[in-house]
Order: sequence, then C-alpha cells, then structure tokens
Amino acid sequence: MSARPRRAAGRLAITPSLTPRDLDRRGTPAAAWQARLITLFPEAFPGVLGLSLTGRALAEGRWGLEAIDLRPFGMGKHRNVDDTPAGGGAGMVLRADVLGRAIETAMRGVPQDRGEWPLVCLSPRGRPFAQDTARRWAGARGVTMICGRFEGVDQRVIDHYGIEEVSLGDFVMTGGEIAAQAMIDATVRLLPEVLGNAASVEEESFSDGLLEHPQYTRPAEWAGREIPPVLMSGNHGAVARWRQEQAEALTRARRPDLWAAWQARKG
Amino acid sequence: MSARPRRAAGRLAITPSLTPRDLDRRGTPAAAWQARLITLFPEAFPGVLGLSLTGRALAEGRWGLEAIDLRPFGMGKHRNVDDTPAGGGAGMVLRADVLGRAIETAMRGVPQDRGEWPLVCLSPRGRPFAQDTARRWAGARGVTMICGRFEGVDQRVIDHYGIEEVSLGDFVMTGGEIAAQAMIDATVRLLPEVLGNAASVEEESFSDGLLEHPQYTRPAEWAGREIPPVLMSGNHGAVARWRQEQAEALTRARRPDLWAAWQARKG
Repeated sequence: MSARPRRAAGRLAITPSLTPRDLDRRGTPAAAWQARLITLFPEAFPGVLGLSLTGRALAEGRWGLEAIDLRPFGMGKHRNVDDTPAGGGAGMVLRADVLGRAIETAMRGVPQDRGEWPLVCLSPRGRPFAQDTARRWAGARGVTMICGRFEGVDQRVIDHYGIEEVSLGDFVMTGGEIAAQAMIDATVRLLPEVLGNAASVEEESFSDGLLEHPQYTRPAEWAGREIPPVLMSGNHGAVARWRQEQAEALTRARRPDLWAAWQARKG
Repeated sequence: MSARPRRAAGRLAITPSLTPRDLDRRGTPAAAWQARLITLFPEAFPGVLGLSLTGRALAEGRWGLEAIDLRPFGMGKHRNVDDTPAGGGAGMVLRADVLGRAIETAMRGVPQDRGEWPLVCLSPRGRPFAQDTARRWAGARGVTMICGRFEGVDQRVIDHYGIEEVSLGDFVMTGGEIAAQAMIDATVRLLPEVLGNAASVEEESFSDGLLEHPQYTRPAEWAGREIPPVLMSGNHGAVARWRQEQAEALTRARRPDLWAAWQARKG
C-alpha cells in the first residue's frame, strides 16, 4: 500500500514514506487542527474553504487539510471502489476492503482515541450535524471524514472502525464533499487561532437557543421604510427588551422545536 | 447601475446590456433551470458543483449558474457593503440599499412570481432546508440566493422583496457560499435532465421517512466479518423484512423525531 499515489491539498502534502513524527514537522505546526478527507473528488478541496477567513487561516498554517483520493485504493484495472448491494436493490455500495485500505492510510499517525480524532462518514443515515458537533470536533486534534455516496458504505467497515455517521440534514446530495466543507467550516471557525473572540461572541448569541432578532443599519430610511424608532432611541434597556421579544416571536413562528426546548429550559 | 461590472461563472455569462429575451438565447437553453448567487466571493462558484454529475450537467447546459459579485454595489471608494447594527451590538449588517441594488440586477428578466423563481437568503434564522424545499425549488424555473453573513442583512430588504430565509442547519458558518452549494446540489440533482431516473429512485427511498437499512457488498468476508446470511439467501421476502426491521430500529435509535412522524403516519 505504501506505493499508492496520494493527493493532497492545503498546507500538508505528505508522501507514504513519511512516519507520523515527520508528518507533524511539515508545513502545518504540530498542534494545528487537521482535516483529512477520503474522497473520489480530491480536487473539490479546499474549495470554498480556501477563501475568506478559513482560507487565510489555512494559508497561515493555523489548520491543515489533506484530501486523499479513494480511487487508487480501488480494485483491478479500473480501480473500482463500489459494487452492487448484497440482497439486491438499486445503487452501488462502497466496498469494505477498498475503504478499509484508505482508512488505514488516512489514520496513520493520528490518535487512536476517537475522542481525540473522530472518524466520520457523511451520510443521511447519520445523526444531524449541529453546533455541538462542531464544538466537539474543534476540541479534538483533527478529524477524518469519508465523503460517501447516498447508497452508503459497507456496514462492516462502519462497525469495524467505529465510524461516526453524521448527516448535514434531511436531504439527498450527489456526494459528501459539500457536506464535508460545511462541517469543516463550522468547526474551523471555532478554533481559537482562527477567528479568536469573534466566533465566541456569535456562538453565545446562537447558543441561547432563539433565532436572532431583526437587524437594521444605515441608511435611516430606505424604500420608504424606517428603522424601528426604539433602535434609534438610545435606551439600551428598551432596545434589549424589543430584541428579546422579536427573537421569541420569530422562534415561536418558525421553529416550534427550538421554541419548545427554550421554554423547557426556562422552566 | 447598468455600467457596474459583473462576474459570471458557468454557462451563462451575461452583460447588463442584454434584455431578458437575449438572456434566454445565450449558452443555457431557455428552459434550463438557473441559479443566481449574490456573494462577496463569486470565485467560490461553481466550486464542487463544477465536478461530478452536477458539473457534467452544468457543462452540457442542463442547468445554469451565475455568481454576482456584491462588492461593486457597495458604498464609496472602498465599496463598503455593511455597517454597524442600529441599536448597537457586535458584528456588521448588510446594508439594504447595497443589497437592494444587487437584487434588482439579479432579478432582471426572471418571473415576478416567487413561486416560479424563489428569492432566498441563507441564514441560521431561516426555515430548515429539507428535501421538500429542494423539490419545490426544482419545480421552479430558477432561484436567486443571497449568501449572507451570520450577523444578517437589514430586515427592510427582507420585507421589501419578500425574501425567503432558509437555514442549512443549526450551526454557524463563515458565510453562505457553502450552504448555497449544498442546496443547489440537492435541487439540481432532482431536475429530470440531470440525473433522470436515478434521483427519483433515491428520492422514494428517502421519502418513506425512515433511515436506510445497512448495506453490504462484496467481498463475502472481510476482516473476519460476514455479510448477514439473510442477504445471501435469495429469499426476497425475508430480505425485505430484514431491511424494514433494520431501518425501523435505526430510525428509532437515532432519530426520535423521524420515528414519531413515521408512527403517526402509519397511524
């Protein structure tokens, strides 16, 4: 397996001959959070993650990204990675042996403890990704993500490696690559080295469990519409009360699930 | 406004001098579904959407994509697009006048009826995006998406244009670009011209409201683990029963919300 070709994106471009200790000395600082992706489309990365705040932090080595091409681990001349489902049915299933070899490579040199380095498969069968998932992953040293397909992967590989199945939401996508980018974005921005204080301020606002109140800014009048006078009053208490009322009304109307949870917490 | 620079990606690269009828005659067939994005990072598109099945369909003109740079619509020498929140608080808010000008451009030549052409803002305040949202949008002629920031946009522009706020999930992202790609992917793959029958088969499986049963494929034995014998039995009735039981057990364990909804439907 050590002769298999590899593809890498971002700061960390390793070759199979490197030992784990060497890995830590290349480009990305040893302590920097790492995302490793197993994908049939390594050219999808870093994608949008290479732009804006996440892109700047990636270029500065504050986090690292490596995309591992699944194809070279495939079977035979055509490097097939999937096969028809046992028991019949539509679609194709990623083979356990093929994926297993890719996982062995992707997990080389990372902590065995899944709490320190989660091994994740993106799948609509998974538990929904949410802010607490991002927070947990940001507290790890890195994460390895398998970008699956809708038909899924052989269950034995999930059982054997203790893979955490995570879903971006209740909808079907062509592949897991965009979902991986969404989850990495939400995670990386919580790293203290990336956004610092800014993220934690937003986090607090998000974590109170209500949708955000309406926002307004200059100009004072636009298209015949004014900013609500209370926001221009300079009365901080009145502003805070108005925002709280608006946040509660919006949450009640749009997200009965969040509203019920918030009411339960308020007791 | 007609002299403002524009950026375009994908098949449809229009200039402001084109009339709506001209638009329909360039590159993308008149009937092809269109995504228009208002973003500070037009270079983020098509991104992953330019790969795989969505990328092939884009190259073949089966759907179209246009990214409109918000920056040139900004104020003053630095083309500022945001300002501090009225009433105080952290973060910045997208200005109504700036965004309004970009929306006027982005909605030129598209149906006035929001059912035929939704105008969407990506925001954690929105209703959660789900498969039924993708289905609804795929039935429209196209969609215009505003890639917002967490702090949000001036509420007056949301009210004035009847903007539909949609959320990718209960987590905070750096920007709306990845969320837009996720939603476009889920929508485009439902277009009959893009995936044809394949998508509808998956849709059916997804739409029964249960998480998918475990899948297995060759080899018959891997890492000391065998495929469950029932799947190798050739007994189609037994296979179907086993899969149904597995799907129900998984849904009950992982997604009490889906399980409750499924039981209610079974009534």
